[in-house]
Amino acid sequence: MKSYRKELWFNVPSRRAFINITRQVEECLRESGIKEGLVLVNAMHITASVFINDDERGLHRDFDVWLEKLAPHEPVSQYDHNNGEDNADAHLKRQVMGREAVIAITGGQLDFGPWEQVFYGEFDGHRKKRVLVKIIGD
Amino acid sequence: MKSYRKELWFNVPSRRAFINITRQVEECLRESGIKEGLVLVNAMHITASVFINDDERGLHRDFDVWLEKLAPHEPVSQYDHNNGEDNADAHLKRQVMGREAVIAITGGQLDFGPWEQVFYGEFDGHRKKRVLVKIIGD
Amino acid sequence: MKSYRKELWFNVPSRRAFINITRQVEECLRESGIKEGLVLVNAMHITASVFINDDERGLHRDFDVWLEKLAPHEPVSQYDHNNGEDNADAHLKRQVMGREAVIAITGGQLDFGPWEQVFYGEFDGHRKKRVLVKIIGD
Repeated sequence: MKSYRKELWFNVPSRRAFINITRQVEECLRESGIKEGLVLVNAMHITASVFINDDERGLHRDFDVWLEKLAPHEPVSQYDHNNGEDNADAHLKRQVMGREAVIAITGGQLDFGPWEQVFYGEFDGHRKKRVLVKIIGD
Repeated sequence: MKSYRKELWFNVPSRRAFINITRQVEECLRESGIKEGLVLVNAMHITASVFINDDERGLHRDFDVWLEKLAPHEPVSQYDHNNGEDNADAHLKRQVMGREAVIAITGGQLDFGPWEQVFYGEFDGHRKKRVLVKIIGD
Repeated sequence: MKSYRKELWFNVPSRRAFINITRQVEECLRESGIKEGLVLVNAMHITASVFINDDERGLHRDFDVWLEKLAPHEPVSQYDHNNGEDNADAHLKRQVMGREAVIAITGGQLDFGPWEQVFYGEFDGHRKKRVLVKIIGD
């Protein structure tokens, strides 16, 4: 069994953003030389997500509006966690969107359906944060 | 390390449905001959889910009502994504229910608790869609 | 490829609770002797979660209030599932928080970012329930 590890770094200039990282994960897979196995892609921070969905700008706006409705940023005082912090909503949003994606590798490729793309979801930006790519297989 | 891959196809005649696919995943596991490892089961489409929960009809109705409350289908015009499409809600519902399940394999069996069953969750039916079963192990 | 399996047992004296199980998962990893691979940690019950977030008491209260808002326990009669049961809300809450975490193993350690901790989320306590830890790798 072979294994491979890489960190992808982000410094998002806004509080929230969705960034397509599919090409970077594919580059990791090429570097690994692994042909059959699994890729784990996970946010290493607890106010961010890795998820798989559509690369469509309108949908990303819908995600943002919807997450703000489910777990609003303001008033920040509504959350017990916001005692010197203001990012409780980011911890909640990340639960809806998920921490990680596990992706099959077949024939040296990400084994994706027609529209699947991997995203980094940032909910508390303005700082350097990381995603882990771990690949195991043969 | 051995690996196995199969696609399960669905053509759900309604917009939304929950389909128990546990037997099909078990059949894949038998075909693979793998005794120790992991199974990844994921929707290959971004308006559908694979998740693990209870095979109880009342609960499935509760899921449907609840998801409609969290991310209503109508009015379709409330979503930016619905520009020639009407399935933005399906993209949101799939985030709540999840894309994938990762299941342990022990002694050639799905290593499940007493009530765990795997479901395909369709949120935008009336078309052919796929689930990927990828198994790695020995 | 090596594999390892252990069940962690819980008997939570309240209906809902969040329990940090990071030390127990690390102990499993040590016992396994696996240096490179993946850990799957999943609730074996469908009214409980395993998830990764912050070990901060205020945030856990926020999670509890938020989940009660998204999927209230009462009135129990609002759910079709609650026909002789009262735990439909626990099945819904578990979907938001997730069934499982998949964690990379690098150099014999859980490959975590600075604040990542693994939690057992109980939404229907007062009984014995289990979490599965399955590790594969070399």
